[in-house]
Amino acid sequence: MLEEVFVIEVEEVELVVEGEEEGKRGMLLLSSRRYLLARSCSLLRIHAIAMGGHNNSDVGEQQQQAAKKPAGSSLNAAELIAQSANATPAPSTARANLSSIVPGWFSEISAMWPGEAHSLKVEKVLFEGKSDYQDVVVFESATYGRVLVLDGVIQLTQRDECAYQEMITHLPLCSIPNPKKVLVVGGGDGGVLREIARHKSVDQIDICEIDKMVVDVAKEFFPDVAVGFEDPRVNLHIGDGVAFLREVPEGTYDAIIVDSSDPVGPAQALFERPFYRTLDQALRPGGVICTQAESLWVHMPIIKNIVSACRHTFKGSINYAWTSVPTYPSGLIGFMLCSKAGPAVNFLEPCNPIDQAIDPEKSSRRPMKFYNSAMHAAAFSLPQFAKVELEHLLTPPPSS
Amino acid sequence: MLEEVFVIEVEEVELVVEGEEEGKRGMLLLSSRRYLLARSCSLLRIHAIAMGGHNNSDVGEQQQQAAKKPAGSSLNAAELIAQSANATPAPSTARANLSSIVPGWFSEISAMWPGEAHSLKVEKVLFEGKSDYQDVVVFESATYGRVLVLDGVIQLTQRDECAYQEMITHLPLCSIPNPKKVLVVGGGDGGVLREIARHKSVDQIDICEIDKMVVDVAKEFFPDVAVGFEDPRVNLHIGDGVAFLREVPEGTYDAIIVDSSDPVGPAQALFERPFYRTLDQALRPGGVICTQAESLWVHMPIIKNIVSACRHTFKGSINYAWTSVPTYPSGLIGFMLCSKAGPAVNFLEPCNPIDQAIDPEKSSRRPMKFYNSAMHAAAFSLPQFAKVELEHLLTPPPSS
Repeated sequence: MLEEVFVIEVEEVELVVEGEEEGKRGMLLLSSRRYLLARSCSLLRIHAIAMGGHNNSDVGEQQQQAAKKPAGSSLNAAELIAQSANATPAPSTARANLSSIVPGWFSEISAMWPGEAHSLKVEKVLFEGKSDYQDVVVFESATYGRVLVLDGVIQLTQRDECAYQEMITHLPLCSIPNPKKVLVVGGGDGGVLREIARHKSVDQIDICEIDKMVVDVAKEFFPDVAVGFEDPRVNLHIGDGVAFLREVPEGTYDAIIVDSSDPVGPAQALFERPFYRTLDQALRPGGVICTQAESLWVHMPIIKNIVSACRHTFKGSINYAWTSVPTYPSGLIGFMLCSKAGPAVNFLEPCNPIDQAIDPEKSSRRPMKFYNSAMHAAAFSLPQFAKVELEHLLTPPPSS
Repeated sequence: MLEEVFVIEVEEVELVVEGEEEGKRGMLLLSSRRYLLARSCSLLRIHAIAMGGHNNSDVGEQQQQAAKKPAGSSLNAAELIAQSANATPAPSTARANLSSIVPGWFSEISAMWPGEAHSLKVEKVLFEGKSDYQDVVVFESATYGRVLVLDGVIQLTQRDECAYQEMITHLPLCSIPNPKKVLVVGGGDGGVLREIARHKSVDQIDICEIDKMVVDVAKEFFPDVAVGFEDPRVNLHIGDGVAFLREVPEGTYDAIIVDSSDPVGPAQALFERPFYRTLDQALRPGGVICTQAESLWVHMPIIKNIVSACRHTFKGSINYAWTSVPTYPSGLIGFMLCSKAGPAVNFLEPCNPIDQAIDPEKSSRRPMKFYNSAMHAAAFSLPQFAKVELEHLLTPPPSS
């Protein structure tokens, strides 16, 4: 998958994402004194490279194994780093972030948030696997319950998954009356399905997840999340969400939720313009989408691209919302909400108040932990710095 | 200052804060396999103890020096740990967190948020000092600008200080018409002063900071924050806020902002009931307070104590608000807002909209970066789990 790779030693830490044109892949400089410049290649594994300077015997072994391979053979990025002259040990892939900081702690290190890392104390590693698409790790943490990690990045923890799953689901579904057909792209852990299932009006829940291993792992290790798959309305498709959506007849869905990882690796295409156009096409008039849309504090350039692309594509309303999630970079995550041309949607005033509809006394479902109508309304308030950056992009163009 | 200290090796990580009665100090179990049980003693330095298992020569030297002291002499907590049998190296105080994770990274480790740590890459340590009250460190980080650390805990970074300073100031000051006399307790960096100075109605700004080193360091290394001291309305008092407030004539202030560190070390008394009573007494009828009030995700027991104490003390309105601050534990921080009996205060609907009053074209002040009226209103929306925990404590008792 790697077409061209250079290993260069640098002092500066910087993130550069180039190539706005559709189809052209990005360039990424990694946050390490040893970094990797990768152009026109898969960035799948590159961000898992650990920072230099460790003296871990486990890591040393990996380095020796990497060094045994003949030059020019199919090496992954970490192995290339390890082979470079005077290289510090660079553990590859799944185990890298498990040993790169304090022994026994998992640290989230990525060029997507250079210069900072969040660490969780590991009690026990429960699963490590390498699927066709990514590295999958599950561990029991000391204080956040079980943790799912894909390509070195925390996807969910038992302690705070409620915030993400409830907000990404109910922000769109509470904004339209009587949603019936809902599609989830990604979301293989099942948490969004669990939340959609609270809506009685829904009669069909489709999900297209690219990585079967994520589904299997969720069912084994996160039963309270994967419970979403048990709803009889759910149809699971394992495959590429972009390809799946191209086959969807126009106007099929009331709502589509894009529960993706970051725009490196398998989720990259889910942040590009052609994908937004297929989303728009698959919606019924006045239908809505909600996509994972990164952090206001860390990813403003990415967010501006998302907002611009959505403003260009969706002729209904578009809004940006955010919520607190402690184990995501900067402690929060954003959502892009858009509606297709048709019946007007006002995301800021939910018309389908799910939290009032549930009587915990009469329901067997677990009560809502994070979402409520006040949080829905508040989610659209932007800090002044973000308002200044995004307001003109969010505003509809004057009608001609 | 240490009256009684035991060093015990344990497997479990746990935080226990006992002693609700006034005057009785807490008991704290530290988040380390080696921990320290400290009863009736200052917890000033204890939370700065690093996790075990390092092999840093700098640290090894410190350990040797500690071991040279005769048993029974006045050792600090870290030195006691280092002296215990089979002790792993435990660097003391200021440098501890600068080397305890990846070399060249600062990691925030504390029993206040066990099992997790946030790390920032250090470019250069600019200042290290030990005042009468705490360890003071300033470093240049790779991506968050300069960072102020007190007793191992990040107090502010240039990148995100705007969120905390603007919210803790304008939430109270925009909720009352024409604030005139304002007191800041703590806040020695000057950032809250800078924000208060935006309010033209204010004619007196008093500040009582216990630690002169914080003021001096802010003036030297954080000029954009310490600029708050330059306003001619500011009167700086170096001393204990509790003692200062006891001397304040009843009804002096329109607003008091308690910009404190966590309730271990010098700020502990600022989270206790007698302090809330002196705050109430120092306010004019209908005057308001805003205090730093920890994280909904991590510190619910502490928050419940704060809310209960304030409900008991303040006879006006009381509300809890929160905001995003990436470099604080869990990525957010809360604020307790209360008003004294008198003219009604509705914190949820600001009556003094500062952001509309500033015309960036005509003002020499830097524009607001975080606060605006929408963020003010949104700050009071509580996630469902927090609403369930706090709503009954926030609700006023039925009038008899």
